Amino acid sequence: MADRRFFTLAGSFQLGQLAEVTGSTLSDLSRASVLVTDVAPLDTAEKTHLSFLDNKKYVESFRTTNAGACFVRPDLATYAPAATICLTNKNPYKAYALAAQMFYPAGKPISSRASSAIIDASATIGVDCEIEGGVIIGPYVKIGNRCRIQAQAVIRQGVEIGDDCDIGPHVTITHALIGSKVRLHHGVCIGRQGFGFAIDPAGFVAVPQLGRVIIESDVEIGANTTIDRGAGPDTVIGQGTRIDNLVQIGHNVKIGKYCVIVAQVGISGSTQIGDGVMLGGQAGIAGHIKIGSGAKIAAQSGIMRDIPAGAEYMGSPAVPIRQSMKQTAMLAKLVTKKKGNEE
Amino acid sequence: MADRRFFTLAGSFQLGQLAEVTGSTLSDLSRASVLVTDVAPLDTAEKTHLSFLDNKKYVESFRTTNAGACFVRPDLATYAPAATICLTNKNPYKAYALAAQMFYPAGKPISSRASSAIIDASATIGVDCEIEGGVIIGPYVKIGNRCRIQAQAVIRQGVEIGDDCDIGPHVTITHALIGSKVRLHHGVCIGRQGFGFAIDPAGFVAVPQLGRVIIESDVEIGANTTIDRGAGPDTVIGQGTRIDNLVQIGHNVKIGKYCVIVAQVGISGSTQIGDGVMLGGQAGIAGHIKIGSGAKIAAQSGIMRDIPAGAEYMGSPAVPIRQSMKQTAMLAKLVTKKKGNEE
Amino acid sequence: MADRRFFTLAGSFQLGQLAEVTGSTLSDLSRASVLVTDVAPLDTAEKTHLSFLDNKKYVESFRTTNAGACFVRPDLATYAPAATICLTNKNPYKAYALAAQMFYPAGKPISSRASSAIIDASATIGVDCEIEGGVIIGPYVKIGNRCRIQAQAVIRQGVEIGDDCDIGPHVTITHALIGSKVRLHHGVCIGRQGFGFAIDPAGFVAVPQLGRVIIESDVEIGANTTIDRGAGPDTVIGQGTRIDNLVQIGHNVKIGKYCVIVAQVGISGSTQIGDGVMLGGQAGIAGHIKIGSGAKIAAQSGIMRDIPAGAEYMGSPAVPIRQSMKQTAMLAKLVTKKKGNEE
Repeated sequence: MADRRFFTLAGSFQLGQLAEVTGSTLSDLSRASVLVTDVAPLDTAEKTHLSFLDNKKYVESFRTTNAGACFVRPDLATYAPAATICLTNKNPYKAYALAAQMFYPAGKPISSRASSAIIDASATIGVDCEIEGGVIIGPYVKIGNRCRIQAQAVIRQGVEIGDDCDIGPHVTITHALIGSKVRLHHGVCIGRQGFGFAIDPAGFVAVPQLGRVIIESDVEIGANTTIDRGAGPDTVIGQGTRIDNLVQIGHNVKIGKYCVIVAQVGISGSTQIGDGVMLGGQAGIAGHIKIGSGAKIAAQSGIMRDIPAGAEYMGSPAVPIRQSMKQTAMLAKLVTKKKGNEE
Repeated sequence: MADRRFFTLAGSFQLGQLAEVTGSTLSDLSRASVLVTDVAPLDTAEKTHLSFLDNKKYVESFRTTNAGACFVRPDLATYAPAATICLTNKNPYKAYALAAQMFYPAGKPISSRASSAIIDASATIGVDCEIEGGVIIGPYVKIGNRCRIQAQAVIRQGVEIGDDCDIGPHVTITHALIGSKVRLHHGVCIGRQGFGFAIDPAGFVAVPQLGRVIIESDVEIGANTTIDRGAGPDTVIGQGTRIDNLVQIGHNVKIGKYCVIVAQVGISGSTQIGDGVMLGGQAGIAGHIKIGSGAKIAAQSGIMRDIPAGAEYMGSPAVPIRQSMKQTAMLAKLVTKKKGNEE
Repeated sequence: MADRRFFTLAGSFQLGQLAEVTGSTLSDLSRASVLVTDVAPLDTAEKTHLSFLDNKKYVESFRTTNAGACFVRPDLATYAPAATICLTNKNPYKAYALAAQMFYPAGKPISSRASSAIIDASATIGVDCEIEGGVIIGPYVKIGNRCRIQAQAVIRQGVEIGDDCDIGPHVTITHALIGSKVRLHHGVCIGRQGFGFAIDPAGFVAVPQLGRVIIESDVEIGANTTIDRGAGPDTVIGQGTRIDNLVQIGHNVKIGKYCVIVAQVGISGSTQIGDGVMLGGQAGIAGHIKIGSGAKIAAQSGIMRDIPAGAEYMGSPAVPIRQSMKQTAMLAKLVTKKKGNEE
C-alpha cells in the first residue's frame, strides 16, 4: 500500500472494470465484480490487491504471491497461485500502468500564484496554472493552460510553453519553445548557450549561439539534465521522447520521436538521432553523426560513427552487439589459454 | 593556514591532548606540552603546525617538511625530519581528521527563520533549526532538531527529516523519509518520480511511482546527485553511506550500510548493493542485479551481472580485476607482436 | 535569422568592415561596400547573409549555399558558388565568431537589485551590477563591477568575485575566490566540502576540507558542474579554461590555463592538469596523477597514470591513441578470423 503521507488512493475498482480499461482478459469471468482495493508489488501484495508480472526474473515471486489479482502474459498465467485471479495481457506492464493511474491519478495544478513569484507584466499565463514561490517569469513569456510552474523555476524572455506542462523546481528555461504535456524535473537547464568557441592562440573566442531549443509535446526530461540551445540551427527534442536524469545534450542535436535516453548519456553537438532510438545509460555519442531510427545503443557505449537504422551496438568504440560479445568472450579465452601455457 | 575569510580556527592544542583524542603515540613523550597552532599539508606546514602522511607517494614531502608535528604510520616514522615530532597511528588519516575537527569544528545552525521562507502551517519544525531565504516547506512535513535548511531548498508534503541534518541550497526532497545527521549538498534531487513507463506502439504509458526514498542516518549525498523514488518498493540508502557528486540512483535500488559511491556513478533500477561496497567513479551498474557486501568496483566499470561478496571487478563489461589487468596486458602485447611481424 | 523573441540584431555591416575586424581577405575587393544583414548557417542562409565553412564535412552545403558571403579557408574557397563572396581566413570559425559578435553583441547587466535579493550589510557590490530575485549574498562577500548575479544564486561568506562576471541562476558559491570575466552557468556548485573522510571500522570520519576554490579570469563553467574545494591545498581552475556541463572536479585538483573540458568528465582529487589540455566527454581521470600540457584525451578514456605533455591517449585504461586504434582493429580481426575457422 502506497504511503498515505505521499499518495492519495482514489478508491476500489471491480476486476471487470479494470480488465476493460486495460484491455485484459479475466481468467475467471465469474469474478468480474470482485473489488480490488489497491495495487502492490508481488511480494508485498495482499488478498485484495492487484499486482503484475512483467519480468521473467520474478516468476518465483509470482508463484508465491498473495495478490488477489495479477496482470500477466498469457503464457505465464499457468504459474499463478490458485487464489490469484489472472488478468492476461500481452503487455502486462502497460496494463498495470493504466490500472495504477486509476488508483493513483496524477494531481492537477491548483490555480494559484505565490506572492513571491515575479511575473513580468508582458507575460501571458493561461487559465488554471499553479505558480509557486520564487518563480521568475520574464518579458513576453507565454504559458498555456493548466501548467504547474514549481518553486524557483526561472523562465526567461520570450519562452513559450504549451498546455498541461509541469516545470519542476529549480529549472531554468531560456531561448526555448516547448509544446504541451511536457514535464521537466528538478534542476533541468534548457537553452544554455552551448559549448561553442573558436580556438585561437590568444585564447578562445566565444561564438554567439543563435539557435533555440525546440521541445515537442509529451516529452519528459529528468532531473539536472542539461540541453544547450542551437548555435544557429535549433536543438530539437522530438515528440514523446523520454530523457532520464543527468543527461547532456549539446547544441544543434536533433532527437526524433519516442526515443528513450537513459541517465548520464552524453550527446555531442550537431548529432542527429532518428525516431524510437534507445540509448543505454552513460552512453556517449560523438558530434556530427547520425543514428538511424530504431537503433539500440547499449549502456556505456561510445559511438563515433553513423549507426544504421535498427542496428544494435555496444562497446567503446561500439561495434554490432554480437561482435562485441564475441570480442569479450575471445579476450577472456585468450587470457585463460595464455595462463594455461604459462603453468 | 586555512583562509580566515572562510574558516575559523578554534585555538591551539597541546600535542599530548591531540595524541589522546586521536589515539596516537608521541614519538617523544617529553614534548607532550608543546603547543601546535594549526593543521597544514606537509609542503606548506610551518614549525608550529601539525600535518599528516597517509599516502606513500608523499614520503618525499614528509622527509623535507617543516611541520612541527606529524601523524604517520609507525613504519614510516623513520623518514621524519629531526625537528618533526611524530604522532604514530595505524590510521594517520583518521587521526588527522579528528585533530582537524578540533582546530576547525563544524559550525552549528543558528536558530532562525528567514522571512522569505514559506512554511506550511501544518509542518512541524524542531528546536534550534536554521531556515534560510526562499525555502519552501510543504504540508505535514516534519523536521527534527538542530537542522539547517539552506537557501531555496524545497521540501514537499509529508517528508520527514531527523535531527542534525544539513539540507543544502537548491535541494528538492519529495516522497522521502530521512534519518538523522544526513547531509545533502547543493542541488540534490530526492524522490523524483522514477524513469518508469510501459512501451507501447501508441507512445509511452507512465507508470505511477508509488514508493518512497528512505535515507538512513549519517548518509552524505554530493551536489547535483539524483535519487529516484521507488516504483512500488522503496529506494533505500543505508546508514553511513557516502555518495559523491552527480551520481544517479534509479528507482527501487537498495544500497547497504557504509558504502562509498564515487562521483558520476549510475545505478539502474531495482539493483541491490550490500554493505561496505565501493563503486569507483563513473561506474555503471545495470538494473535488477545484486552486488555482494564488500565488493569493490573499479572506476568506469560496467556491471551487467551479479557480483559476489568481497570480489573486485574492473572493465566494461567487468571481469575480476586480475583478469582485467591480464586482458589489458595481453592486448598491448598482441599489438606489439603484430607490429614486429609487419616490419 | 535568429529568432527575434530571443535575440536582438545590432544592424547590417559592410563586407569591408567585416573583413577588417576579422582579419579576412575579400575574394572580390570591389564588393567591400556590399551590406550583409545577418549571419546564418550555410543551408538556411539567404542572399544578404554571411555564413562560414569550418568543417570539411559540410563542403557540399557550401557548394549549394545561397549565402551572399562566407568565411572559408583559402584552400576551400574554390568550392564557393558563383554568387557567394568569400572572406578567406586561416581560421574561419574564429572570423565567424567575431562577426557574429558584431551582429549579436552580448547583453550588458542592467544596474538593479531585486527587492527579494537578500544582501548582507557587510557585502561590497561594485557599480552597474544586476542582482536578480532570490539571490542571497552573505557577509563580507566582495563583488566587482558590471556583474550579473542571476536568480536564486547563493554566494556565501567571504567569497570574492572580480569584474564583469556572470553568475547563472541556481548557482551556489562558497569558499572561493573568482577572477574577472568568469561565467558560471545554471546550477553550478563551487566550493562544496570535498569527498574526504577517513575509513574506519566504526564508520567514516569526516576530514575538514580547509582549502578553497580559485577560479582565474575568463573561465567558463557549464550547467550543473560541480567543483569541490581543496582539502588543505586549493582547487584551482586556470585562466581561460572552458568547462562544459555536468563535469565533476574533485578537491585539490589543479587545472592549467586554456584547457577544454567537455561534458561529463570526472577528475579525481589531487590530480594536476597542465595548460592547453583537452579532455573529451565522459573521460575519467584518477586521483593524484599528472597530465602534461597540451595532452589530448579522447572521449570516455580512463586515465590511471601520468600522461606526458603533448601526448594523445584513448581507451579505458587509456593507451596512446595509435596503439588504441590498433588494438581495436586487431580485436575486430581476431573475431573475424575465429569466425572463419569455425565455419
